[in-house]
Amino acid sequence: MTGSIQPRVSRPSSRRLERAGIRDVAQAAGVSITTVSDALNGKGRLPDTTRRHVREVADRLGYRPSAAARALRTGRSGLIGLTVTTYGEEPFTFTEFAYFAEMARAATSAALARGYALVILPAASRHDVWSNVALDGTVVIDPSDSDQHVADLVRQGIPVVSDGRPGGSLPVTAWVDHDHESAVLGLLDHLSEAGARRIGLLTGTSTDTYTSVSTQAYLHWCERVGQDPVYERYPAHDPCAGAVAADRLLARPDRPDAVYGLFDPNGTDLLAAARRYGLRVPDDLMLICCSESEGYASTDPPITTLSLKPRRIGTAVIQLLIDAIEGADTDRPVQRVMPTELIVRSSSRRRPARAVVTEPRRPTP
Amino acid sequence: MTGSIQPRVSRPSSRRLERAGIRDVAQAAGVSITTVSDALNGKGRLPDTTRRHVREVADRLGYRPSAAARALRTGRSGLIGLTVTTYGEEPFTFTEFAYFAEMARAATSAALARGYALVILPAASRHDVWSNVALDGTVVIDPSDSDQHVADLVRQGIPVVSDGRPGGSLPVTAWVDHDHESAVLGLLDHLSEAGARRIGLLTGTSTDTYTSVSTQAYLHWCERVGQDPVYERYPAHDPCAGAVAADRLLARPDRPDAVYGLFDPNGTDLLAAARRYGLRVPDDLMLICCSESEGYASTDPPITTLSLKPRRIGTAVIQLLIDAIEGADTDRPVQRVMPTELIVRSSSRRRPARAVVTEPRRPTP
Repeated sequence: MTGSIQPRVSRPSSRRLERAGIRDVAQAAGVSITTVSDALNGKGRLPDTTRRHVREVADRLGYRPSAAARALRTGRSGLIGLTVTTYGEEPFTFTEFAYFAEMARAATSAALARGYALVILPAASRHDVWSNVALDGTVVIDPSDSDQHVADLVRQGIPVVSDGRPGGSLPVTAWVDHDHESAVLGLLDHLSEAGARRIGLLTGTSTDTYTSVSTQAYLHWCERVGQDPVYERYPAHDPCAGAVAADRLLARPDRPDAVYGLFDPNGTDLLAAARRYGLRVPDDLMLICCSESEGYASTDPPITTLSLKPRRIGTAVIQLLIDAIEGADTDRPVQRVMPTELIVRSSSRRRPARAVVTEPRRPTP
Repeated sequence: MTGSIQPRVSRPSSRRLERAGIRDVAQAAGVSITTVSDALNGKGRLPDTTRRHVREVADRLGYRPSAAARALRTGRSGLIGLTVTTYGEEPFTFTEFAYFAEMARAATSAALARGYALVILPAASRHDVWSNVALDGTVVIDPSDSDQHVADLVRQGIPVVSDGRPGGSLPVTAWVDHDHESAVLGLLDHLSEAGARRIGLLTGTSTDTYTSVSTQAYLHWCERVGQDPVYERYPAHDPCAGAVAADRLLARPDRPDAVYGLFDPNGTDLLAAARRYGLRVPDDLMLICCSESEGYASTDPPITTLSLKPRRIGTAVIQLLIDAIEGADTDRPVQRVMPTELIVRSSSRRRPARAVVTEPRRPTP
């Protein structure tokens, strides 16, 4: 397409809807609508000159076949959605959290590499963006157990892959998750071995599997070792609520001497609260949080983190989804469990590494 | 919407196009199409019972008003595009490069925070994704001087904000860029002050402003100081081509003793080539590349990088674009020049920092 560039014209924002239709092209080219369609789609038996003429006219008028017409012809739009639905209509800029940002980056790369566009959808919008885009499939992160978005999509026959095993009876096409129970039991044992006597938990109020399985694992662990649970819940999409909940947890009469926080900012939330109460980390309080932020390697002290390896997750969900879109789907949902990694740093090492004291060498006499 | 969830049904991938239309809802609810439309859009004077009945039927059938109908009513889709167009139809997973990944992350956050969905579009696709989505506006990164995507969008009256000053006569709504000339002249002076006598350049073959202005700045600098230019060009979207070009540059008879590479992987490309030729960095060869990768802080030796601060850019382009979409646009393009930062590391410090030798304190007698 090599049409001349016209000077920019300022018009109201509905201007893009005034663009040329197929009728305008047919009229300007002096041919039928069918001829225009055939010429632009490489169909029918048309002389090359006609085909070229129609294309030039279409280009000059800025005509593009409507999305609906193309989608009907191909059955696919090449568009994949990605969103976090667990907080419903609450405004939530999820890519401000390291896990979602890294997961979305990997998903974007995986989609682009296979020729799909990734549509990152907001939780709440003035525009009905869900209705304005014909998605071939959708990735949902941490769906709640009665997620209506997911239920609607599934009912419409649109493949849905969830990051996080769906709770309740959500019939997704495939899901990818971690073994959160093992991960939480493992880190609680780690804290206990480092000398913790009463381990607390900072958790969320939502009903996604990550939050509920992690919390249940904590409660089971407490029961097993005979410790009274000490935990606070807060709405994790609210960036300020974590600091308040951390404060509440450390203000309790049954104050824990170690805490695991389920969400990315909890390390700094808890570190700040510890300072307010004059608690030394790790001596008075050991800390672990689930985070992908490399910043925790350089806090004072560095904080032990549970990593969920979001880049692997982002790649896996997109591969599964595109496989399903392109017809490799089966009747049985695909499930994939991915590894986690505990990155141990000073905040959970109460017993100091034995200092190796070396006598300075003296010159031999 | 609280319709019951039906068991998942496996059907061909065109199934999503079989969803219920407004006629199906009208028939099932026993009302007219106008009544369905009024009930779902909160218009007209309908008894509450009718409105509720229609909504229940629409929900049960999984009916959603068509994107086109909604877009026509509101004039906006809530969708913003983002893409890299300079490599045309070449496949290019641009989010594998740190600059684009960080820029896209910031753009995603900025769009979500204002209730817009960000559509990250591939350079090449089997699907005509551009036609399948009604964008309110588009961000283009590094447009080439005759970018047809941009020209088409502008002609259709769709606001376009470019990351990178557009070359040629591309009439974009706004652009954000850096002062690449100053940045390049500054880092060449830095290498020269560190003792470089012949500085080489690794640059690209594309016609975007970043590549052309940076290359011109290098050529001007060479002319000013009386050095013959020593440079190699390569297609920067090809991840393997940089290593080959770096090798070619260091194999030349007029081998440079310092190199600036314009693209993210050039630091490791040049480091690997230096090893193959037995060149020590920085003693035999000093290196700088333009990169946002933190990995260059821990290469052996660490490599000096020029940072373009992509997070600021990503936020700025989206703010400018949404302002334009929402009617704050003027006839005159908005231009914004953002700062760069040279992060100096060992690879461009040929003269070792003076070691501060302190005599050990002796106990006073």
